[in-house]
Amino acid sequence: MTTPFPTSAPLPVVRLIPKANARAIRHGAPWVYENELVTDRRTKALAPGTIAVLEDSLRQPMGVVTVNPNSKIICRMLDADPEASIDQAWMAAHLRRALALRERMYDAPYYRLVHAEADGLPGVIIDRFGDTCVIQPNAAWSDALIEPLTAALIEVTGVKNVLKNASGRTRSLEGLDDVSGVLAGTAPDAAVPVLMNGATYMADLTGGQKTGIFYDQRPNHAFAASLSRGARVLDVFSHVGGFGLAAVANGAASALCIDGSAPALALASEGAAAMGVSDRVTTRQGDAFDVLTALRAEGAEFDVIICDPPAFAPAKPALEAGLRAYERIARLAAPLVAEGGIIGLCSCSHAADLAAFRAASVRGIGRAGRRPSLIHTGFAGADHPQLPQLAETGYLKSLFFHL
Amino acid sequence: MTTPFPTSAPLPVVRLIPKANARAIRHGAPWVYENELVTDRRTKALAPGTIAVLEDSLRQPMGVVTVNPNSKIICRMLDADPEASIDQAWMAAHLRRALALRERMYDAPYYRLVHAEADGLPGVIIDRFGDTCVIQPNAAWSDALIEPLTAALIEVTGVKNVLKNASGRTRSLEGLDDVSGVLAGTAPDAAVPVLMNGATYMADLTGGQKTGIFYDQRPNHAFAASLSRGARVLDVFSHVGGFGLAAVANGAASALCIDGSAPALALASEGAAAMGVSDRVTTRQGDAFDVLTALRAEGAEFDVIICDPPAFAPAKPALEAGLRAYERIARLAAPLVAEGGIIGLCSCSHAADLAAFRAASVRGIGRAGRRPSLIHTGFAGADHPQLPQLAETGYLKSLFFHL
Repeated sequence: MTTPFPTSAPLPVVRLIPKANARAIRHGAPWVYENELVTDRRTKALAPGTIAVLEDSLRQPMGVVTVNPNSKIICRMLDADPEASIDQAWMAAHLRRALALRERMYDAPYYRLVHAEADGLPGVIIDRFGDTCVIQPNAAWSDALIEPLTAALIEVTGVKNVLKNASGRTRSLEGLDDVSGVLAGTAPDAAVPVLMNGATYMADLTGGQKTGIFYDQRPNHAFAASLSRGARVLDVFSHVGGFGLAAVANGAASALCIDGSAPALALASEGAAAMGVSDRVTTRQGDAFDVLTALRAEGAEFDVIICDPPAFAPAKPALEAGLRAYERIARLAAPLVAEGGIIGLCSCSHAADLAAFRAASVRGIGRAGRRPSLIHTGFAGADHPQLPQLAETGYLKSLFFHL
Repeated sequence: MTTPFPTSAPLPVVRLIPKANARAIRHGAPWVYENELVTDRRTKALAPGTIAVLEDSLRQPMGVVTVNPNSKIICRMLDADPEASIDQAWMAAHLRRALALRERMYDAPYYRLVHAEADGLPGVIIDRFGDTCVIQPNAAWSDALIEPLTAALIEVTGVKNVLKNASGRTRSLEGLDDVSGVLAGTAPDAAVPVLMNGATYMADLTGGQKTGIFYDQRPNHAFAASLSRGARVLDVFSHVGGFGLAAVANGAASALCIDGSAPALALASEGAAAMGVSDRVTTRQGDAFDVLTALRAEGAEFDVIICDPPAFAPAKPALEAGLRAYERIARLAAPLVAEGGIIGLCSCSHAADLAAFRAASVRGIGRAGRRPSLIHTGFAGADHPQLPQLAETGYLKSLFFHL
């Protein structure tokens, strides 16, 4: 194995086979697949994350890439300039551009700052919570260069604390460990308040799911909240109160948050207290399918119900079972919606595309004897940009129906 | 020809053939296609818009429909209750439900009140502008029953003025004339102010395109406006200033509105004056392709550009040419976007689906030498509900890219 770093010249060289789609890469395609690259013994020996120069089959340099010989995505483009130095200044330039986009969109420093490829930093996720950032370096190159990346992040944003979250599922593919930690400053010793859509969410940045809060649902929270003035709201799979607290911030009469996780619900209650709306927010811990069934038996009724389950169909083998689970959630929740009310159904399953998820949702609502009309289709927020070449892979969908 | 009305019993009967998908209709499918119905001489003789009872092939009544023997969509379901009376009370019930949904969503009475099938009134469009409503009775049944419909509308909403817009392209298929007029109250003698997203639009309810303003773009206007604080905004195909005035209302430094129609631009200027922002809004009349070319020659630059052209691909035969036109618009507009700026591209073409429109847009941006990332995909506003069975036909798409 060669050592992947430092990145200073001369870099190793990898080369496209003649049949590879060099034109697509020149036009911005971010990845080279393993069957497009000459994989000789030397290339196969490169350590995951090696920084290299990519050449076309005629030995013309095409740019700087990071190589993972163990992955089907064998190269990820870092810079179309083959002379580029992948150093702190290079990282700072990308971070500055990413920050300018978020500052254009949001009043307060709570957002996904870097969303991997589309922000020019392949495999890197950075979420910002005020003066703390959490980095998920899910690609080997960024794990090895975490020090200049951290320095660039502090230089560009001025944040005090930078944490590393190494729980990403893709890290093992890159040969990386799962050891999280503090990269700069200190880890917060309590949940951090996050301001979004008028609500205050409490994010556990060291112990929670992913990085403690889900920024991707922001526009869908906002849409649901805009329907919720005076409404009785049910937030199923609420995590720390995503839909419920936004609804109450926008004038909902009440929100009942359901989740299987007691710590998540404790954070939802803590958020409600911080907002001064504890009298309008209640929680109920339990399996969502069971609680929905119990609520029906109790004769409960809501004006707005949102179900935001974990990925029931994260990958293709789980698709059929996943779609049945989405249908079942819809079938159990729809009877609890008042006449003329709203049901919002979300999927964060890569494998379930929009049409399949919509069909499963409509089937479930129909089996509950209700006739839905579709009023809104939403996706992840604008702080989750996508390369158009990868736009079909958008994972988050939300559907709102009038019943 | 039998006379289609009155609707009181006994109604004529039409019947499904054995192979028809009766189950789909029982589950909410809104239409019966001509190859699903027994089209004997008696059925063929029914006047377009006849109210009838639909039976399945075993002569079990399935509901009340309106029949148009000249259309491929030969029946549209009105009510699953075969005893239903299609009268003023029936219309008022549907209008009340539609109004409740809009009042849940909007603070001010400016919205599409009825969006045809999904609001239970097949072929009927009603837009509300404060105390004036404009009805497009695009199906024969609603044209014939326009009097009880008008009475129900006044009863439910309390509006003073009801206008009829008979310019819909589908009316001729239903055997209807194109004579617009006043159904109740008076026609406004000047443009009417419409409040949306903080902007004031001036709508010409008697002389304008469609019903004078496009409510469908409301959420896309809002998204663009949220990116426009301090920005130099270019609104291409602006009509009465849809994107430009919303942006200025949200703090844009300037908006230049381009349209081929001088009357539309005069209304945009009138709106800007009503908002007290005339110093930040300018207009330029001309062909959009020509003006974009000229702006490039002038060295103009903008932070946010939105292009909202008329339907370049309204139907399948125009698809290829339409997609080329979308690509060309993107190619001409992208070079005018400042580094780190935003381009928003819209399509209201039924024939161009989301993937095809996105590909054309990305191709055009790429041909301009820019590398886009996709930050937002939007559709028509929630006052344009859709039956899920027809959701694939959603016509309006907007794509926002970070350049």
